[in-house]
Amino acid sequence: MARIALDAMGGDFAPQATVAGALLALAELDPAHSIQLVGQTAVVEAQLRDLLDGELSAYAVYRDRLSIVEAPDVIEMTDKPSAVVRGKPNSSMAVGLRLQSEGKSDAFVSAGSTGAQMATSMVLLRMHAGLKRPAIATFFPSLRNTLVVLDSGANVDCSPEELVQFARLGATYAQCVLGRANPAVGLLSIGEEPEKGNAVTKETHLLLKVSGLNFIGNVEGRDLPAGATEHHDIDVVVCDGFVGNVLLKFYEAIAPLMIETLRKAGVDGAQLEAGLKHLDYSEHGGAPLLGVRGVSIIAHGKSSPRAIKNALKAAAQAVTSGMNDLIGQRLGTVTESAA
Amino acid sequence: MARIALDAMGGDFAPQATVAGALLALAELDPAHSIQLVGQTAVVEAQLRDLLDGELSAYAVYRDRLSIVEAPDVIEMTDKPSAVVRGKPNSSMAVGLRLQSEGKSDAFVSAGSTGAQMATSMVLLRMHAGLKRPAIATFFPSLRNTLVVLDSGANVDCSPEELVQFARLGATYAQCVLGRANPAVGLLSIGEEPEKGNAVTKETHLLLKVSGLNFIGNVEGRDLPAGATEHHDIDVVVCDGFVGNVLLKFYEAIAPLMIETLRKAGVDGAQLEAGLKHLDYSEHGGAPLLGVRGVSIIAHGKSSPRAIKNALKAAAQAVTSGMNDLIGQRLGTVTESAA
Repeated sequence: MARIALDAMGGDFAPQATVAGALLALAELDPAHSIQLVGQTAVVEAQLRDLLDGELSAYAVYRDRLSIVEAPDVIEMTDKPSAVVRGKPNSSMAVGLRLQSEGKSDAFVSAGSTGAQMATSMVLLRMHAGLKRPAIATFFPSLRNTLVVLDSGANVDCSPEELVQFARLGATYAQCVLGRANPAVGLLSIGEEPEKGNAVTKETHLLLKVSGLNFIGNVEGRDLPAGATEHHDIDVVVCDGFVGNVLLKFYEAIAPLMIETLRKAGVDGAQLEAGLKHLDYSEHGGAPLLGVRGVSIIAHGKSSPRAIKNALKAAAQAVTSGMNDLIGQRLGTVTESAA
Repeated sequence: MARIALDAMGGDFAPQATVAGALLALAELDPAHSIQLVGQTAVVEAQLRDLLDGELSAYAVYRDRLSIVEAPDVIEMTDKPSAVVRGKPNSSMAVGLRLQSEGKSDAFVSAGSTGAQMATSMVLLRMHAGLKRPAIATFFPSLRNTLVVLDSGANVDCSPEELVQFARLGATYAQCVLGRANPAVGLLSIGEEPEKGNAVTKETHLLLKVSGLNFIGNVEGRDLPAGATEHHDIDVVVCDGFVGNVLLKFYEAIAPLMIETLRKAGVDGAQLEAGLKHLDYSEHGGAPLLGVRGVSIIAHGKSSPRAIKNALKAAAQAVTSGMNDLIGQRLGTVTESAA
């Protein structure tokens, strides 16, 4: 069973989308799981009442698996992420993550400021041994299967050693949350040959070959939409956070471009949206901050109730699969053998 | 008027696609332009006869603007690009580019090996003062307008100074070939604020601000499909060749993913292909090697006759607009003022 703290105040459509998402999630999660709504109690209670008296009245049966945890401070977009932990110690982010560090919660989900969530998670959950900063892992829908791509923006200049750590984190995540046995890890580069790429990539390639991971070699930009190289299916793609972030934002913007283009060409809009639904980010479960001691999942700022629901389900999956312990073990093994 | 040398032997569908593309181009180009088909004379002549006796018989009127230049050596995919110039001095690439360095031709187009074309162009055309290697500029279709993105793969680890040179090259290209007055140049990064990005990007941002170019600041991955940031339209996007190559290959692979996905969802295939036609690379005019003294344009290896035609038209445009001189002047000005 998992107790999942949800930042009820975070995101463009909070608290409506967050509270509604929690109710949708409870209906789909195993009854052993519960959700802690973290935020200003009066606001959260009013929102909950609104939904249960109105459009989500059928969800009243799940009310007893919801609790509300008071967090009076509110993070504004103008707050500096690194200053949030100290400046607003009772924000919904700090309170939600503190529940976890105190053993009162098992996971945290927020659609609020990514920077603040990362900084607060690093301070309150701390990092696994040997890691300096977490990596953000995101799902990339492909023709074949969903890929895990990391880092997607937390680390811009990475050493080969850091990229190898990302590979371990991503492989564990793909195993625990996507159920991939022995995940196939590719290194993003500009040619399949080991000697193709920039200096960091070429060195990383050599390290990954002896990492013990199921390393399938370099993958190229064109392999991501396909979900496979010519020779291998792909589960995890490793890159630095600069390239990963550029690609992620590019990918997110492509579907609207295609829909707009095709609509202008006379293709039926409803048919298009239905067809491209699996490219919709709300279908996927948020992006975990991998490497922190615990579970901290970033939901998109524009998360709908459905997106929040999927992020909560991913959080539950991360907890019940024992992802955090497994990450600790795998990184621990490496540190010891390297020492 | 321009005399354009075409590598008749280069590309997956040569010589059929190249010779046919040349005929299509002559029909659309100003009558003052001529094309030099460079390759094994017997092979090229036979192909030309086939086409003029067959499906392209209506194009026989353009035959007198075509000449054939003998190039007995053939470059194989197994040839090392850097060894091609010396090892096969009479390949279609070397002969075609030598015509230009000897003043007998004004531009060169090839769908053959990109690496061999770059190496051979650097040796035979040489670089403009202050440049070590050329940058490859590619067109990215967007919702608004076509963008010039560079570098797309020739330079993987770039200094801030090199990225600023790419900006100058790209702006001149956008002006000469796309007809953009005072092209808007964006720097690809992971946030619009100047302090966002990796170390090289942050320094490049500061240099671009004082470059005299129409620098609109950082652009993000999502701005490329849109062709604009929140505040500005974009003409040129500057990045290193690692990021540029990953993005280009990703973009090229996306349209087939979308078409496949939507076809499975029941959308009519013909309607899809028509709607996404402007994302088809054959609609665009190849990728120039910017920075060499002259005009050398890379066509896609899978170029159709239509793609070859468009690359030849871009070459003609580069020549008649005086792009090469303008690049020399702009880089020269910079070198002088920096000295």
